[in-house]
Amino acid sequence: MGENMECHAGIVDNASSPRARVLAVPISAVEIRPGFWTNRMDPARRKGLPRLLGHLEDHGVVDNFRRISQGKEVPRKGPVFTDSDLYKWMEAAAFSLQWRADDNLDQLLESVIDDVAGAQGEDGYLNTYFSGDKANLRFGNLERDHELYCAGHLIQAAIAHYRATGRTNLLDVAVRFADYLASVFGEGRRGGFCGHPELEMAMVELYRTTGKETYLDFAGYLLDQIKFHERRTMEGHAVRAAYACCGGADYFAETGNGGTWEALVSLWTDMSARKSYVTGGIGSRYVGEAFGEPYELPNLRAYAETCAAIANAMWAWRMFLITGEPSYCDMLENILYNGFLAGVSLSGDRYFYVNPLESSGEATGERGHRRREWYDCTCCPTNVQRTISSIPGYIYGLGKGEVWICLYQASRLEAEISGTRVIIEQETEYPWKGRVDLLVSPEKPTSFQLCLRVPAWARDSTWSTDGSDPREARPGSILRLDREWRQEDKVSLELGMPIRLIRAHPRAREDFGCAAIARGPLVYCLESVDNPDVEVRDLVISREARPAAEFREDTLGGVSTISFDAFVASSPGTLYGEPGGPDLKSVRATAIPYYAWANRGGSSMLVWIPLLEALEGASRR
Amino acid sequence: MGENMECHAGIVDNASSPRARVLAVPISAVEIRPGFWTNRMDPARRKGLPRLLGHLEDHGVVDNFRRISQGKEVPRKGPVFTDSDLYKWMEAAAFSLQWRADDNLDQLLESVIDDVAGAQGEDGYLNTYFSGDKANLRFGNLERDHELYCAGHLIQAAIAHYRATGRTNLLDVAVRFADYLASVFGEGRRGGFCGHPELEMAMVELYRTTGKETYLDFAGYLLDQIKFHERRTMEGHAVRAAYACCGGADYFAETGNGGTWEALVSLWTDMSARKSYVTGGIGSRYVGEAFGEPYELPNLRAYAETCAAIANAMWAWRMFLITGEPSYCDMLENILYNGFLAGVSLSGDRYFYVNPLESSGEATGERGHRRREWYDCTCCPTNVQRTISSIPGYIYGLGKGEVWICLYQASRLEAEISGTRVIIEQETEYPWKGRVDLLVSPEKPTSFQLCLRVPAWARDSTWSTDGSDPREARPGSILRLDREWRQEDKVSLELGMPIRLIRAHPRAREDFGCAAIARGPLVYCLESVDNPDVEVRDLVISREARPAAEFREDTLGGVSTISFDAFVASSPGTLYGEPGGPDLKSVRATAIPYYAWANRGGSSMLVWIPLLEALEGASRR
Repeated sequence: MGENMECHAGIVDNASSPRARVLAVPISAVEIRPGFWTNRMDPARRKGLPRLLGHLEDHGVVDNFRRISQGKEVPRKGPVFTDSDLYKWMEAAAFSLQWRADDNLDQLLESVIDDVAGAQGEDGYLNTYFSGDKANLRFGNLERDHELYCAGHLIQAAIAHYRATGRTNLLDVAVRFADYLASVFGEGRRGGFCGHPELEMAMVELYRTTGKETYLDFAGYLLDQIKFHERRTMEGHAVRAAYACCGGADYFAETGNGGTWEALVSLWTDMSARKSYVTGGIGSRYVGEAFGEPYELPNLRAYAETCAAIANAMWAWRMFLITGEPSYCDMLENILYNGFLAGVSLSGDRYFYVNPLESSGEATGERGHRRREWYDCTCCPTNVQRTISSIPGYIYGLGKGEVWICLYQASRLEAEISGTRVIIEQETEYPWKGRVDLLVSPEKPTSFQLCLRVPAWARDSTWSTDGSDPREARPGSILRLDREWRQEDKVSLELGMPIRLIRAHPRAREDFGCAAIARGPLVYCLESVDNPDVEVRDLVISREARPAAEFREDTLGGVSTISFDAFVASSPGTLYGEPGGPDLKSVRATAIPYYAWANRGGSSMLVWIPLLEALEGASRR
Repeated sequence: MGENMECHAGIVDNASSPRARVLAVPISAVEIRPGFWTNRMDPARRKGLPRLLGHLEDHGVVDNFRRISQGKEVPRKGPVFTDSDLYKWMEAAAFSLQWRADDNLDQLLESVIDDVAGAQGEDGYLNTYFSGDKANLRFGNLERDHELYCAGHLIQAAIAHYRATGRTNLLDVAVRFADYLASVFGEGRRGGFCGHPELEMAMVELYRTTGKETYLDFAGYLLDQIKFHERRTMEGHAVRAAYACCGGADYFAETGNGGTWEALVSLWTDMSARKSYVTGGIGSRYVGEAFGEPYELPNLRAYAETCAAIANAMWAWRMFLITGEPSYCDMLENILYNGFLAGVSLSGDRYFYVNPLESSGEATGERGHRRREWYDCTCCPTNVQRTISSIPGYIYGLGKGEVWICLYQASRLEAEISGTRVIIEQETEYPWKGRVDLLVSPEKPTSFQLCLRVPAWARDSTWSTDGSDPREARPGSILRLDREWRQEDKVSLELGMPIRLIRAHPRAREDFGCAAIARGPLVYCLESVDNPDVEVRDLVISREARPAAEFREDTLGGVSTISFDAFVASSPGTLYGEPGGPDLKSVRATAIPYYAWANRGGSSMLVWIPLLEALEGASRR
């Protein structure tokens, strides 16, 4: 292990990265308190995590390792890449242990680690598919076989476990495998690269964890192999493309490689300005689970794989850490509250693979519109778990003489700033209310900047300290409060949360003439359950909809619903024609946060609501 | 052969069908004269047909038969169903021979027939894939292997050849195969059915051709197997679903089976009111080449396979023959002029597999937006050829004391009505002009009805006889002129052809707030070639667009273009936001008939144009 090993680093450890504007904090330094995210994390941890391990057992994923480690006589089961599903579960468990001690979970994880470790070969290679009579197929089809991808997830799980416990039993396995891979691949050795990027970011993180430059070089080699620095647009398989960007960002943070950065900026623009959903989802096509052309963003047939939203969040976070630009963190927040969170049920144990923005409730099957506990390709459930259990790591950041508040959630941070121990306590009912109260308590009076992200949507936001007059907080900026802080200094931020009617670029054809309702970081949708007297997909919203938000304790675990004036337009008699103005019937409609849809049985759902003014403009002669 | 064999029947032979309101005419009774369709049929016949046989030779499709018939030592090539590609080419050649003698083509066809006939087994079975060491796989996977589908195409080719030449050399092969199949499958014998319907309609037509009821019963058996009478909505693979409907319609025409008709009507409503493009294309999804949910009609990602448009046209024709309802014939016309015809280049030898309604011009590959001479799955090119060479058969129909004019095209029909020989001569520059002049010449004065289809779009249409005052012809009706006709009686029909701005049902989300330009039977599109100074997909049309049609001899082989006032709206800076009103720049835009797009190199294209009024209605606060 290297000198700079730091066993309490965060989601990533960019403490020594030359290109890091914001430093991730150790998850263990964050105490998360009751609020929005605990309501989502607790069911996931209590119910989702154990049930998912149960499914991994039932589907033979753990036995695949025991076949080798214990000689258990069972057939190898599941897709070629299913080792990674167990690794992601392990990473989820390890992240959970970073913010909440749990002896049972710890022991369970150790037991699984034994199963995994025992399946490693003499040479360090570890993959349950390419063993026994398939051992000779090793590295035979890198494009298809996910071998390096699985290795990447093993490494990430090992690092999370090490950061959770300080134990190296899994990290040692990962290092042996990484060393083996580094000895096989690289310039002057074997060529080729994995069809599914993932190992890049794992290798950078292993470099950060161990200090061994071989791993950083290997990441650079992999990025070279996929000609990452030549990429300018997001193409093909969305998860693969975005994981490559994560690896590229990590590599840039360590090396400052100019070509890599040029690619990253161009790719980000292409994704954020042309190829992402209003929910932060990416990858619109079923065919190839892929990005479409610019503005190709179908709603009913959105693919928007949960894993792709996760990949996008990971990428956004990395871009934010590098730059400190609030727009990246806005995207991270948007994904977490919408495109990502829709991927898991309120109960924490049922998942979406695809995340449509419109539904008849009738699309069934593995890629349908019903939540499932398990998928034959179960990448999303395990990815959801590792992401939701890492949420505390996204709330804060540090800089030179800076504390960053990136996300708003009741919590407590303990950190050392300019040599002084500082405690930040955050109280908020965000995202239902825009008020955030901060209690800043340095051990002794200390000067530093408190950097608060003011989201771009937060019009008419203000801040004040210790009861001072409110002053403007500019949307889409970092509010920097630079002063000498003393024990129990108070800062209040009041983020404006008007209900917004978002419009899309007119080239996003399925959204043309429509509006999406949003409030704060939340995108809303209409669901049939709340609007029983109409078909929600026949509703029309007016620009003068008089929308009103109301918190309802009894709805969907407690959410703010939004009611508004809507219309049901008469249906034209034919599919195509030259219609006159429609007949309109007034109704009051109710919208719920998008993340909470499909938790009350099969239902139809709609995010983009046709605007009355567009309907009338288009219809009348 | 049965008693009622009629070697000059048309596309179908419903002369003896109990449920036939309109009877198909023999193609040989129609002399097609220079006009719109000859401009499309001639290049297809002269260039497309021989080139396609060349490709079938080059790709081993004919050799597949010679392997067996001549023992030629070549590997079997192409997909499992590629026998059907040759059969469709043969049917195309046979249809062509029905309206135009061509000794070379005749000899070529006979030579191919020899190759095919020689590959038939002793028992009558004929399939080049399931021969030799694969013979034991026969009927092993009916769902996947297209065996009965191929048989259906053989039968259809044989009937067309028989109707063209009176020769039975291919028909005998088809009958032997059909008898074999009938001996293998059926109640009390082997169960199962083909994954790809097609044999149903072939069997009905073979019954019509030979009078042998076994074939009709077999069609009924096949329809029972797929529970056709229980179907109510169009689901799954579009070509398969629509071919099943063709078979169902043919079966109903012969049997009057009530359950079959109930299914047909419900399926037609589902297709026409919820699941068809404005071009008559069907099957919107790439995944499974399938129908989507109701109103799921993406434009850029339209699949709308050319074969599906053909299947839809065949179905529409059959529904029209059964009922005489003009709406079915309107759909037939719509498909032929738009969704079908876009599937072949003006040169007659390059094809589309998918038919988008929007294109960046950048989608390449087998399912992309560039025309190709050949596809690895080459179902569409051969299907295009057999359809375009059968066009003369769609122009006229007969009834009891009726002559029907179904399509408008310069041509001459010779028929016997109530025992009298009647010649109808049709002169028209349709679809560029709405005027149709008919010269009716019975051998001797005879009373009958001349039934003219007045399309639903033909507002302000009139008709007159021998210079009489024009009288109204109601759109969407059959104009019945019931009188005693004498030598060289004249009828003029003036179909109103205002330029229309079609709107879609608001649930068709990609068309919401947009208009499609149409004139007469033609749907128009914007193509970048004609609008070089703008990106056509950024154009906006106003309801007050002052559109004007102009015939241009020099454009695309002679078409009416439509110019109109358009706007380029300023692009919002972001993908999502709360935009104010857009800045608008005025331009004059030019649209061309949709069928003619993609004939001048790679280009962007748009059918559904956003409406200015919708943009403004949606944008302003």
